[in-house]
Amino acid sequence: MIQTPYLLFLGDAPDPLAAKVAQGIRDWRPEYALGQVRMEGCRADMRVPDMSLDEGLEAGARTLVIGVANRGGVISAAWRHVLAEALLKGYDLASGLHNLLRDEPELVEIARAEGRQLHDVRVPSQAYPIADGVKRRGLRCLAVGTDCSVGKMYTALAMDHEMRDRGMKASFRATGQTGILITGEGVPLDAVVADFMAGSVEWLTPDNDPDHWDLIEGQGSLFHPSYSGVTLALIHGGQPDALILCHEPTRAHMRGLPGYALPSLEEVRDLSLACAHRVNPACRAVGISVNTAGLGEDEATGYLARTEERMGLPAVDPFRHGAGRLVDALSAIG
Amino acid sequence: MIQTPYLLFLGDAPDPLAAKVAQGIRDWRPEYALGQVRMEGCRADMRVPDMSLDEGLEAGARTLVIGVANRGGVISAAWRHVLAEALLKGYDLASGLHNLLRDEPELVEIARAEGRQLHDVRVPSQAYPIADGVKRRGLRCLAVGTDCSVGKMYTALAMDHEMRDRGMKASFRATGQTGILITGEGVPLDAVVADFMAGSVEWLTPDNDPDHWDLIEGQGSLFHPSYSGVTLALIHGGQPDALILCHEPTRAHMRGLPGYALPSLEEVRDLSLACAHRVNPACRAVGISVNTAGLGEDEATGYLARTEERMGLPAVDPFRHGAGRLVDALSAIG
Repeated sequence: MIQTPYLLFLGDAPDPLAAKVAQGIRDWRPEYALGQVRMEGCRADMRVPDMSLDEGLEAGARTLVIGVANRGGVISAAWRHVLAEALLKGYDLASGLHNLLRDEPELVEIARAEGRQLHDVRVPSQAYPIADGVKRRGLRCLAVGTDCSVGKMYTALAMDHEMRDRGMKASFRATGQTGILITGEGVPLDAVVADFMAGSVEWLTPDNDPDHWDLIEGQGSLFHPSYSGVTLALIHGGQPDALILCHEPTRAHMRGLPGYALPSLEEVRDLSLACAHRVNPACRAVGISVNTAGLGEDEATGYLARTEERMGLPAVDPFRHGAGRLVDALSAIG
Repeated sequence: MIQTPYLLFLGDAPDPLAAKVAQGIRDWRPEYALGQVRMEGCRADMRVPDMSLDEGLEAGARTLVIGVANRGGVISAAWRHVLAEALLKGYDLASGLHNLLRDEPELVEIARAEGRQLHDVRVPSQAYPIADGVKRRGLRCLAVGTDCSVGKMYTALAMDHEMRDRGMKASFRATGQTGILITGEGVPLDAVVADFMAGSVEWLTPDNDPDHWDLIEGQGSLFHPSYSGVTLALIHGGQPDALILCHEPTRAHMRGLPGYALPSLEEVRDLSLACAHRVNPACRAVGISVNTAGLGEDEATGYLARTEERMGLPAVDPFRHGAGRLVDALSAIG
């Protein structure tokens, strides 16, 4: 578990997109985002106070989060200097970079000497159990998609936000690196060893109050040949009571696989439910989340109306219209 | 790839069952099993010549295979002495033990100094690609089951054996530790990191002659909540043309999961085909393999006849009756 709140390290981000992890923290956990550290040439701005490391400490920050992708997959000397200084001043470090903090000897040495933590959220930091399939108390909602990267994390975070606003008991459960950095905990599912995938999801969503909802971040797609096994482990480990079907209507083919068309929402609904019923016979599809960023306002409204009519489920773009109707649908069954 | 042929190390196996890896090699690759090394108290016998390490070398053995489970999960001093001597004499070592050879400093040091290989087949020895889903040449058969440990490996090995006897082009493709030790190569799928599971299966079953069959060892079950993700990665990475449905009729519940009944063969057929058609629309279920070890001869015959009638597919126990009819079914489509 990563200590919060955070100071956000934006480094020399060449554009706002490079700082999307920081943006996610700023959007979804603003209370964690005390300030930002920007180096020369940084072209991203989270609209939180610019702070020195000392000012961040004074404001209460516990962890310096690398909220930016690095260029060329290496931690530059300029970055390393700031990171080392942060460790010496008393920060833990957290990173979702492919190249790991633990592979930087200088940082490892300082962290060890100072008793600081290095959190590499791309790789598991612990051993997970084998799944036992025993039904757990509490309610669970899982976002499943027609493809990778269609808005499953965004959907779950938006629902979590709406439910907290309504005073409902809810927890976003992160299964990917960005989600883990946003919330400070979770399982980097795509890096878990095969035998322990479903068990790690059971561990992530333990027994809870009968009226508590876990909003589990989805990964991959049952229809994506590269990652489908991860998705099935999420369904079987997650024991969802409710599924949200996620889709991006302008995509020409499955992400990274030119030979594969996207499945229909009906196919995703039917196969996902068939699998979910193995662990939770009460599971049902309750809503549809469409990423309409590629459509104009009228197009988006029309697409959502037609989809809602066709599928018989509320269909919304939570970014454009909020997650209220998806949460209404959850409330109706929990 | 493990160098063959082998000398089989049986250690102090307390009973024949403890030496089941050695037995698998003896049964399925007798040409690799030049001899056996037995220590005091060994109660297993592969019916191959007892040899000293020197005699094994003289006979041509390249690798000493630990064909036996160890007691208490530790490599005893007595074992270590033999293993160290084998390395010094020129053998590589191969092991499927949970405790790894590479974690034994003395063996690592000798192997390094002598230029010998330590093969721990429980863990991957290389990086695998992300699956690309591109259709590969050649034919593939995958064993899928109603549960774990219902005879999927045995079925694939028996079919491989029968096909070679008939002069067909066939390769058994190992996905578990016993299979890897039997054939000298494969993918320890349950230890592969989630994102690379399907890619490792694609790597394992590359392009081949149009009339060549890969017989892919199955793992887990789509209906086993602990391991289903591994099975789906096998189906999507394997791109099977043919499925053999495997079953053990006396099992009261899913292995390790008292709360879960076994699915029917119809359910396994339908869900497996639905998933397989995503990567290979031509895939079909061609036969049924039943492990009837728990039934008497008449019971077994009756069960197989009823299953065959019900499912409309040849149903055999390859251990009792050979794999001939399953291979006939493959030949009919390839």
